[in-house]
Amino acid sequence: MSIRIGILGYGNLGRGVECAIRQNPDMELAAVFTRRSPETVEILTDGVPVVKADAAKEWTDKIDVLIICGGSATDLPTQTPEYAKMFNVIDSFDTHARIPEHFANVDAAAKAGNKLGIISLGWDPGLFSLNRMYANAVLPQGNDYTFWGKGVSQGHSDAIRRIAGVKDARQYTIPVESSLEAVRNGENPQLTTREKHTRECFVVLEEGADAARVEEEIKTMPNYFDEYDTTVHFISEEELKKNHSGIPHGGFVLRSGKTGWNEENSHLIEYRLKLDSNPEFTSCVLVAYARAAYRMAKEGQTGARTIFDIPPAYLSAKSSEELRAHLL
Amino acid sequence: MSIRIGILGYGNLGRGVECAIRQNPDMELAAVFTRRSPETVEILTDGVPVVKADAAKEWTDKIDVLIICGGSATDLPTQTPEYAKMFNVIDSFDTHARIPEHFANVDAAAKAGNKLGIISLGWDPGLFSLNRMYANAVLPQGNDYTFWGKGVSQGHSDAIRRIAGVKDARQYTIPVESSLEAVRNGENPQLTTREKHTRECFVVLEEGADAARVEEEIKTMPNYFDEYDTTVHFISEEELKKNHSGIPHGGFVLRSGKTGWNEENSHLIEYRLKLDSNPEFTSCVLVAYARAAYRMAKEGQTGARTIFDIPPAYLSAKSSEELRAHLL
Repeated sequence: MSIRIGILGYGNLGRGVECAIRQNPDMELAAVFTRRSPETVEILTDGVPVVKADAAKEWTDKIDVLIICGGSATDLPTQTPEYAKMFNVIDSFDTHARIPEHFANVDAAAKAGNKLGIISLGWDPGLFSLNRMYANAVLPQGNDYTFWGKGVSQGHSDAIRRIAGVKDARQYTIPVESSLEAVRNGENPQLTTREKHTRECFVVLEEGADAARVEEEIKTMPNYFDEYDTTVHFISEEELKKNHSGIPHGGFVLRSGKTGWNEENSHLIEYRLKLDSNPEFTSCVLVAYARAAYRMAKEGQTGARTIFDIPPAYLSAKSSEELRAHLL
Repeated sequence: MSIRIGILGYGNLGRGVECAIRQNPDMELAAVFTRRSPETVEILTDGVPVVKADAAKEWTDKIDVLIICGGSATDLPTQTPEYAKMFNVIDSFDTHARIPEHFANVDAAAKAGNKLGIISLGWDPGLFSLNRMYANAVLPQGNDYTFWGKGVSQGHSDAIRRIAGVKDARQYTIPVESSLEAVRNGENPQLTTREKHTRECFVVLEEGADAARVEEEIKTMPNYFDEYDTTVHFISEEELKKNHSGIPHGGFVLRSGKTGWNEENSHLIEYRLKLDSNPEFTSCVLVAYARAAYRMAKEGQTGARTIFDIPPAYLSAKSSEELRAHLL
């Protein structure tokens, strides 16, 4: 029997989960839950019901794992604990500072409902965290580096759009190649904010807006841009649509460490992601961990978990025998 | 209380484990076991006994985890099952084709002794396997690529040394950069053996040996060199010692995959190791998994495991709370 997945929230992430389920033959999409009017939500999969989120409680025996596709700012802090009482749940909560609190809330709710919840999945937090952890355990003496990009930062794009005279904008975060190379060469550099990333902005102006003033406002914006080397390009609306409508992202996690009786040998562990679609890749991670949640719940496990707690084999559709024979 | 580690076999790997233990404050080296005369084996750590391997059975209550540092060809197939009856064990068995059989033997022995054994650890098999598995689970539609190097291949160096007229030799396996770039660009190339790696040889000749004949014998050697583009450099013994006495290695595991309703988006997951010392890095992996074996055995788990079965958090000296707060 297939693993029956429910999706709560049908934006970019929910649609990505729907696509990912299609690539995993041991899973099926059982229902999409939405806070909008269900008749206004058109999904890609034929024959799958779109249901009002309030009615999810009637689906507890028809869904094995519910993947919650809301935002971290306001949705997930309340949604994940609420639904963890009724379903095994997966979320992508990514407000790093609030993870311990969110974990405690989901843990209490899931235990009360005899359910399992895996939180803060995706790639950062998620696969990047996992690689930081493995690399730290293997090389206890060393330095960690994380670079993000090249990729679209939604927050920085929004910040530019709030400037008077800006019609639309897209901002790319780009790692500084020479700093990345210094890390790879084992130089263990101490890098400032400016030395780690540059910011490149593509801006569409309102008619009559003052380009020089807009550029100045961007480059001096506190927190967002003032500590970075920023480039601003003014382009037409057509060009923005044509060349900058994707949501690519990615980055690098590196650990540079020493071994030997006198720490005489250097080692580098590097993990890199290059993603055409940030939400679709994140969705793929959520779906693989939904398989793990299903299996752990079947064993009777309850409460909250993170990526650090999940045995790798639980993610794979292959049996342990197949994994040992073919992937080890 | 510290985790008490025993080392069985004191070559490059055993010495690497000894160095790694020193970097992990929650561990201590309890004893080194050897098949040689213990008085001929000098170790780095003060005050730790070197003991005849036969006497290991008297140490069962003084060792939490025994790290078996023998070779895969003849040592580990018998040693790991034998010692798994008495100790929680770790090994680096790397004969891919024989892993299922080795797993079964260690599983039976460890269960009989109420012990836990984790086999086939290191970086390939090991961290590379883990990355292949995670990447396959996250991107079910895609292609896998593994490149090794730049690094010293002991087997190929030995093969050159067996040629008449060769005094000493060192062989480096080198990934073909253009193929690596094609994979990174999402071209999903079908690569022949020749297109994946080149081989570079540094050879010291016996006096009077015919360089042209030696070069020809190397380049045409079946299996080892004939399917590769091979470069041969003749150098002096002094230069070999000075510039080629290290044991560096490393490599790349890549998965290139597609997502989206019509598989319209491409993604790349890349894991890279660059290692000054192959045995010391392998040792670091063994030691991190010794921590996991200790914890799992404490929970009463028995039998054989591989890297796919171990929850990541078990490798880390940090608590789950610390991991969630600082590494997630």
